[in-house]
Amino acid sequence: MSTICELTSIIEKDIAETHLTESKRDAVAKELNEKLTAGSIILAQTNPISGDVAGNATKAAKWIKWANMLNVEAIIFPELYLIGYPIGDFIDRFPIIVEENEEWLNALAKITKKVKVIIGYAKRNEEKYGKKFYNAIAVMQNGEITNIIKKSLLPTYAEFNDYRHFEPAQIDSGSRIIDINKKKAGIIICEDGWNDKDFFEKNLYKDDPVETVVKEQQPDYLINCSSSITRAKKEQLKHNMLSFAAQKYRTPIVYVNQVGSNDNISFEGASRVYDSQGKLIAMAKSYEEQFFIANPFNTEQNKIYPLVNGLEKTLTSQKAFTLDHEPDLERTYLTIIQSIRDYFRKTGFKRAVLGLSGGLDSTVCATLLTDALGAENVLGISMPSKITSEESKSDAQRLAHNLGINFCEISIKDMYETTRNKFDNIFSEVEKKWDCRYKESFTNDNIQARSRALILWGIANEFGSTLPIATSDKSELYMGYATINGDMSGGFAPIADVTKTKLFALAKWLNKNRTKKNAIPEEIIAKRPGAELAINPKTQKPLLAEEALMPYEFLDEIIWRVENLQQSITQMMEAKFLYETKENITPEQKMEWLEKFFKRMSTALYKWSIMPPSPIVDARSINKSEYTQPIISSKINYKKTTQEYKIKKIIQS
Amino acid sequence: MSTICELTSIIEKDIAETHLTESKRDAVAKELNEKLTAGSIILAQTNPISGDVAGNATKAAKWIKWANMLNVEAIIFPELYLIGYPIGDFIDRFPIIVEENEEWLNALAKITKKVKVIIGYAKRNEEKYGKKFYNAIAVMQNGEITNIIKKSLLPTYAEFNDYRHFEPAQIDSGSRIIDINKKKAGIIICEDGWNDKDFFEKNLYKDDPVETVVKEQQPDYLINCSSSITRAKKEQLKHNMLSFAAQKYRTPIVYVNQVGSNDNISFEGASRVYDSQGKLIAMAKSYEEQFFIANPFNTEQNKIYPLVNGLEKTLTSQKAFTLDHEPDLERTYLTIIQSIRDYFRKTGFKRAVLGLSGGLDSTVCATLLTDALGAENVLGISMPSKITSEESKSDAQRLAHNLGINFCEISIKDMYETTRNKFDNIFSEVEKKWDCRYKESFTNDNIQARSRALILWGIANEFGSTLPIATSDKSELYMGYATINGDMSGGFAPIADVTKTKLFALAKWLNKNRTKKNAIPEEIIAKRPGAELAINPKTQKPLLAEEALMPYEFLDEIIWRVENLQQSITQMMEAKFLYETKENITPEQKMEWLEKFFKRMSTALYKWSIMPPSPIVDARSINKSEYTQPIISSKINYKKTTQEYKIKKIIQS
Repeated sequence: MSTICELTSIIEKDIAETHLTESKRDAVAKELNEKLTAGSIILAQTNPISGDVAGNATKAAKWIKWANMLNVEAIIFPELYLIGYPIGDFIDRFPIIVEENEEWLNALAKITKKVKVIIGYAKRNEEKYGKKFYNAIAVMQNGEITNIIKKSLLPTYAEFNDYRHFEPAQIDSGSRIIDINKKKAGIIICEDGWNDKDFFEKNLYKDDPVETVVKEQQPDYLINCSSSITRAKKEQLKHNMLSFAAQKYRTPIVYVNQVGSNDNISFEGASRVYDSQGKLIAMAKSYEEQFFIANPFNTEQNKIYPLVNGLEKTLTSQKAFTLDHEPDLERTYLTIIQSIRDYFRKTGFKRAVLGLSGGLDSTVCATLLTDALGAENVLGISMPSKITSEESKSDAQRLAHNLGINFCEISIKDMYETTRNKFDNIFSEVEKKWDCRYKESFTNDNIQARSRALILWGIANEFGSTLPIATSDKSELYMGYATINGDMSGGFAPIADVTKTKLFALAKWLNKNRTKKNAIPEEIIAKRPGAELAINPKTQKPLLAEEALMPYEFLDEIIWRVENLQQSITQMMEAKFLYETKENITPEQKMEWLEKFFKRMSTALYKWSIMPPSPIVDARSINKSEYTQPIISSKINYKKTTQEYKIKKIIQS
Repeated sequence: MSTICELTSIIEKDIAETHLTESKRDAVAKELNEKLTAGSIILAQTNPISGDVAGNATKAAKWIKWANMLNVEAIIFPELYLIGYPIGDFIDRFPIIVEENEEWLNALAKITKKVKVIIGYAKRNEEKYGKKFYNAIAVMQNGEITNIIKKSLLPTYAEFNDYRHFEPAQIDSGSRIIDINKKKAGIIICEDGWNDKDFFEKNLYKDDPVETVVKEQQPDYLINCSSSITRAKKEQLKHNMLSFAAQKYRTPIVYVNQVGSNDNISFEGASRVYDSQGKLIAMAKSYEEQFFIANPFNTEQNKIYPLVNGLEKTLTSQKAFTLDHEPDLERTYLTIIQSIRDYFRKTGFKRAVLGLSGGLDSTVCATLLTDALGAENVLGISMPSKITSEESKSDAQRLAHNLGINFCEISIKDMYETTRNKFDNIFSEVEKKWDCRYKESFTNDNIQARSRALILWGIANEFGSTLPIATSDKSELYMGYATINGDMSGGFAPIADVTKTKLFALAKWLNKNRTKKNAIPEEIIAKRPGAELAINPKTQKPLLAEEALMPYEFLDEIIWRVENLQQSITQMMEAKFLYETKENITPEQKMEWLEKFFKRMSTALYKWSIMPPSPIVDARSINKSEYTQPIISSKINYKKTTQEYKIKKIIQS
């Protein structure tokens, strides 16, 4: 006797790979049907590919066919499932894709039977005015499309750009109600469910579609089809909000979320059901596709999969900066793993090659790649220069050995010297023409970083389906402490949204939580980071990153304050940093670091604009899918000057 | 006796650099006032820097002070002038900038006298719901802010992302009327003026703020404060629309536009006035800041500066693909020049260094840079490899000589050989681990391109305020025919939105229209493009680009059809290409090229995402400020498969 979960996982495997015989399918269906209570529904927690309409529809067809064999009332897919989410501007440039998604929708309708199919797609707008498309949900049954519901509230912030492509539906643009098993279900599309005036202090929109549908159409329960991004902060908010709405309206809520990553953007699944008292009564897995069966009115068969750590983090715990990253590490890990895996799979890449410096960034990247792609698909290359220490070389080698990845060591000394000799000639030539040669420059540092990238890209050119990896981390990207065409160059950047202090914590977490314990040599975690590109003239040792920048604990708190509190320099001067509770620093020192941060950030904007794809992990980021700032905005005054000063200046000018 | 234009150009110089004495200022003002008719207004055609509130406000103060000395009724600045446009997401992350822009607004109000000041800024939203800010216009007089008008229609397409940051004002959210010289002026903000139901066949918005203000508040004339992007197609549309509205409502229209470039986005100025019969009665210069005085009710003193070629191009002339690029070349040239100049000035760079291959792309880039930055600030480097022909070397040298730019020649042979030798060792190592080495690869080609970029970035690291230039063109970027960390790498990419056939035309145009004629050697224009990175085994000569891709004439027409007609492969198969009217090609050949295009484009999406800033020139582009497409959307089916096929496939699956 198998459980419902065991049986649905057979179904998931059948769809993905196994392909059971007809008789075996019937047997699974029969066994499952014996266990299902009346009124069960399927939450189709799926991972679509943006633009791959045929692929998404073919997968949906398989899920629907399984649904047709079961004693369930409905199968519910996420928002915009057929065309994929996010869609990007291709929806306007290639209208054929929208035609395709409507034709596939009609084709899918033909295979529907008595089980209702509720599925997201892009619908053409036939009105005389407005954007060309609607973000819509189709309801299909017995070979026909029976209802169409359109989204009203269009999120256009962070990763979302709904209003670029969709016309908002009028709040009262028709019924949102469908009949499922003699009960009235109100269909809500993602953001339409996020504007409760009693729950939020400030609302983004004037109207509340949930309030409207409940008041005017009296549903017995609500179904929310979503493509909701993963965030530490967001889960607690989402839970509270959905639970609040269920209680307020005394109606169960079924929430179906997309899973998977598309480019920089990740969805965590965790689809769920609340009862009419706001109690969570069913929850699907996080970060996995799932054929999840639940019953909103009968809890006995329901299962609640635990949320991963990090999704359960409370909002309040994030109101101050902390070095205790532990609670968010499992979510961070799973988001990055899913993102690497989906990016490679969806673009057709298989293998990754990266430089192993023996430092923290490349170490964590190699470990994450190993878990996402398999050790045999990862190649780590140690590329020592004159400055590289013996410890770095042996640390890199040990790491590769522990991870079981492919490894080789290649000195870049000759490449460096050839280039350096050439530069000596060129620079003396150029100096004759331009009187602006720096007394001190990063030229030598960068030759090393760029020679290494040249090797990685060469391997990617020579071997099939291989991508080089950019190892830059978030703290250093904020400071522009990354080399163009060097360590920040690659086909993918796994840790570009992970700060340095969090990376240290993640490295320890990996050592503790991976099947193979302690793969990362303790020495790598213990040593202070440095790019090993230059010698510090004071110490005569390789320059440490914190010497070139500032203490990472302080730097990461500035980043946190910028992203989460939107603080100015003045506000930060007034605030007490965690670092200040441990170390005595003068106001002058603090101001120096703050000014350095904002100055370096201004000149780093260009670097952000050319970063490879990378998973967004934090609440806010500098990922260009989530945050854009004109490069020429480098003259922003991040301090606040006084009114008097301004008027005086204007009058005197 | 000077003309009004001569006097206002003295004012422009005084503000920018000369700094006249008080008595000289008075004399200029006096002479100007004698010429001005009653009811004159100033169209402040200004070039703000996004985020540089203090800089923009200080400039405004100077303009306002001059206005105060003149017998004019009002001075009108463009939309969002104080904070700069486009703003980007920094408006949300750094609310201090909005505070600053409001404080500077108050400071500016204090210096106003009887001349009304009409100026764009970002206003905080104090309502209980909605986005944090409004896109607003303040009207100030006699030391006070007298009116605030907010924008209702928020363009969120192409370069525009207004709805990301602004709350749309209700259409009836208060008066848009102000009194100027006893006449009622209705204030319109950019897109609010672009929704006439009688003019457009299909409207983007339901409401028309112009109709509302005219019907409900009976203005004597309309003032439109804009930040309207430059496009060949758009000018004719804009002219027709403004003229149509002036006639329809029997009211003059004053249109004040921003000028200058911010990152990828360019504004052309050409501010203007129409009379109540829809006749153009005044027009400012294109691509220049201007203190432009006009009178909407008295034409005698008004001046109409001619539009540059390309802005006057009619819509109808663009309904078919053409190789006659001539009509658009002056606009193309000025857009790129302004864009280079503003990017360098606004970010603080002065000098440019680029590789001169003797080919068309680098040649046109060098010429444009020379005109934008001055010959002394441009360094062209010839970097021959084994494959480089003697002709290419001498062409590059001749070009540099003709342009008068700095020049040197440096062989990359030793860099190539050192890297190549290293690769031989590495690849045989890697081959032991990974059984996926290509039989043929682009590895050698790319070593050359990347070694050259290494040199350019080295020079940028070693010399102050120097940017390396990426020379990729639009046709080749569509095909992904550009090397990552090679020719597509740089701090700025001048011709990334110029197709190859247009580049040929531009090169000829430059030879004819620059002060120094024929700077570009005829040989460079005459030869067929090739990257000189590899040898064609068939011809034993360097591989030509058209051999690797397809004829540029055909390629550029595909691009044109994708961007302007949004056609699918099937539609293109049915259409007759210009190339087909000259050459016999089989349907198989045509399909092969079309499929090649879409296949290569799918894998080029990543390259587009990491392109440096570059001016948007064409009606549509692949510039990431204007167009985004998820990289994982490479599985899009650009053909249209039949309904029958799909259903069959679904049923059989």
